[in-house]
Amino acid sequence: MEVTKAIFDHALKKIRPDTDEVVSNQIMFDDIRKFIKEKFKIEARLMGSVAKNTFIAGDKDLDIFIFFPPTTKKEVLETKGLLIGKSVFKKFGGNYQVSYAEHPYTKGKIGIFDVEIVPAYKITSTKKLMSAVDRTPFHTKYVLDNLKNPDEVRLLKKFMKAIGVYGSDLKTNGFSGYLCELLILRCKTFNNLLKHAQKWNYQEIMDLENGYKKSEYKAARTKFNDQPLIFIDPTDKNRNVAAVLSIDRLARFIYFAGKFIDSPSIDYFFRIEQPKDKRQILRSAKERGTFHIAITFKRPDLIEDILYPQLRRFRRRISDSLEHDGFVMMSSWEFGNDECGIAFELLNQTVPRFRTMTGPRIFDPKKNRDNFEDKYEDIWFEGDRMVAEVRRKHFDIMSMLGSFFDEDAKALADKGVPKNLAQEIAKNYSLVEGKDILKIKSEEFWNGLSKRM
Amino acid sequence: MEVTKAIFDHALKKIRPDTDEVVSNQIMFDDIRKFIKEKFKIEARLMGSVAKNTFIAGDKDLDIFIFFPPTTKKEVLETKGLLIGKSVFKKFGGNYQVSYAEHPYTKGKIGIFDVEIVPAYKITSTKKLMSAVDRTPFHTKYVLDNLKNPDEVRLLKKFMKAIGVYGSDLKTNGFSGYLCELLILRCKTFNNLLKHAQKWNYQEIMDLENGYKKSEYKAARTKFNDQPLIFIDPTDKNRNVAAVLSIDRLARFIYFAGKFIDSPSIDYFFRIEQPKDKRQILRSAKERGTFHIAITFKRPDLIEDILYPQLRRFRRRISDSLEHDGFVMMSSWEFGNDECGIAFELLNQTVPRFRTMTGPRIFDPKKNRDNFEDKYEDIWFEGDRMVAEVRRKHFDIMSMLGSFFDEDAKALADKGVPKNLAQEIAKNYSLVEGKDILKIKSEEFWNGLSKRM
Repeated sequence: MEVTKAIFDHALKKIRPDTDEVVSNQIMFDDIRKFIKEKFKIEARLMGSVAKNTFIAGDKDLDIFIFFPPTTKKEVLETKGLLIGKSVFKKFGGNYQVSYAEHPYTKGKIGIFDVEIVPAYKITSTKKLMSAVDRTPFHTKYVLDNLKNPDEVRLLKKFMKAIGVYGSDLKTNGFSGYLCELLILRCKTFNNLLKHAQKWNYQEIMDLENGYKKSEYKAARTKFNDQPLIFIDPTDKNRNVAAVLSIDRLARFIYFAGKFIDSPSIDYFFRIEQPKDKRQILRSAKERGTFHIAITFKRPDLIEDILYPQLRRFRRRISDSLEHDGFVMMSSWEFGNDECGIAFELLNQTVPRFRTMTGPRIFDPKKNRDNFEDKYEDIWFEGDRMVAEVRRKHFDIMSMLGSFFDEDAKALADKGVPKNLAQEIAKNYSLVEGKDILKIKSEEFWNGLSKRM
Repeated sequence: MEVTKAIFDHALKKIRPDTDEVVSNQIMFDDIRKFIKEKFKIEARLMGSVAKNTFIAGDKDLDIFIFFPPTTKKEVLETKGLLIGKSVFKKFGGNYQVSYAEHPYTKGKIGIFDVEIVPAYKITSTKKLMSAVDRTPFHTKYVLDNLKNPDEVRLLKKFMKAIGVYGSDLKTNGFSGYLCELLILRCKTFNNLLKHAQKWNYQEIMDLENGYKKSEYKAARTKFNDQPLIFIDPTDKNRNVAAVLSIDRLARFIYFAGKFIDSPSIDYFFRIEQPKDKRQILRSAKERGTFHIAITFKRPDLIEDILYPQLRRFRRRISDSLEHDGFVMMSSWEFGNDECGIAFELLNQTVPRFRTMTGPRIFDPKKNRDNFEDKYEDIWFEGDRMVAEVRRKHFDIMSMLGSFFDEDAKALADKGVPKNLAQEIAKNYSLVEGKDILKIKSEEFWNGLSKRM
């Protein structure tokens, strides 16, 4: 425990903000708050990790909420919200852009600060929720009221960032800041949490405010179906704070938590990515005796929260189609950072030149059986099932994918390719295999190919 | 219907025995019966298709049962049964052999007749059954009492023989003679049966003596689980007369019955096997883009009822093993007539050089997870499951099968190869692929490869 404590102290020295940083954040926010109050008679409050004092030194996120009465019309809230935001950036001399959540809002840089001005309804209970962001003030208040040891949250966040599981964005599908705070509230310390996680079950339920009786846990697991960790929002029992957490990220956290317990090291907080030897990775992949192919295209101009779910949907669509055609899929992954694309590891590069058509059963009406035989002529039975074979147009992976993708955007979308990707693919795409794979720069591609933790 | 009737008349002219044949059968049986009665004071009765007058012209099967009181000890019945049998063959000058059913019995040739002398208990009801053959007299009596039109049975038997579905032996897994007789009792005529069969469902129940109420049909289907046709034995409602009928043979019968209805032809009774063009079959098979391999060995000296179930078990064992190793199985079949062996059609000739090992889930005890990681070192997660890879010793089909079969008989049997086959394989076997397949003579092999009806 001595060693562990020394490691924590060492890490905290680097990630705990000093008083100057805390004060300078507060001053910047106060200036903005006063400006909004005087000019628009609107109340502004600071949210996020700076408000909760759980931010990591150097993070300069000022999430400023401006509050409208619940009687305000949606259009008024949106217009006025944008107007106030723009005024703030004009007044304090920053560049901004308009982003879109449930309502549009302004975000941008003011000096060294990352500022967001988010319009919300001032409600008195989460039961009266009018939009998703209206929950945030309740989260902030809950953490401020209950959290005694923000440094433990800082350790957790930094650890999670280092192992790649921090962030509830839809690229990472990891742990949100609020979830980190609640996990520390639940387990008291970072170190306890790591141990606690070793005993979690699938759909472990954590429920600080006893939103559910034990007898209701089964129903809760059904309600939060397919969500591998269930942390009941203490401000709204109908919400799972860990809803976007994927099983991959959860497994990764538990795994590295176990590693840290076994041999604590500062490296788990400040992980240095090993530079990748691409030739070595490709050689290992080839040695496996499988076939690798990537479909690459220009990255569409989308935020990651939209791009990654589309890439995953696209990957599943093509994967299902290839498996339906008789290819045996070993693994598949997507990448969207530099180049954009999906990749497959397959057992076979070709499929039989004939496709087996499954017909009616011998117990089906004779008319149906006759129709099948008229259509395919040469039939036989597998068990009670009539089968026939038809010659395939394409039986190797390159020509099969080629014929799938050589279409315009509409035809691709009709075949189930997500719209934004279909547009890029229709313009240009590449099927990359063999040595050409070395030309792919995307780190995510090489992570997927190398597979290792 | 005119055409159909003409076809039936034409067929019956060839398959209905004339009076001379019927009389000569009867005389031969009477001589044997008298001999047994005088010498041993034992009652003998004729069973089988000759007794029931449903035999096809030229069939010379005399199934003679000799009856012992139920109080007779099993050993006495067996010893005395064999003694009487041997005396009969000695007296009438025939060669015999001892065969084994539930009891041993003698069978052999006497002149042009195929004679069996089968010892049985003389019981008064099938409820008092002491061995399986004791049922036969009840079957014979039931058919003699009820069947009015034996010619319809002859048409059915001949049709079934021609399309390869006649015989309840474990090579054919088809329709027994008794089942043919009952089907005619149920549907009155051969032609009606063909039509009736077009409407059968899976596990169609036929129940002449109303052994079951309609409300009990569901339970009956469970009782006769996996048996695709259920014909309740009118002499014993606990028995399905079609118990050994396989789904393949049933489908084949229904299919050809439908063909005959659509375009009746005498060819369905006297089917001439087309001579097979083996090169053409092999070329078609190769064109499919799959890989074919046969494992051949000397046919063990076994009756078909024992050989074929062993071959099928062997085929499933090897098929499962290959699929477990990552080969994708398209079809498989066995052959036991000339050469003996099993054959596979596969998608791939090789598998990845590494095998994926599936480990514990992330939610399993840390100790288990640590053990897995200690054992395999390089691990990663697929969902919540730990996986690792180990290098395979063999990754092409030839070396994999070679390493499986290069063992002594005991080791092969321990690996699940049926004992009698293991003994032959241990002595010698061949893996046949490519052009060498042309050297295989077995008709059954080529039927399996060509697949067509």
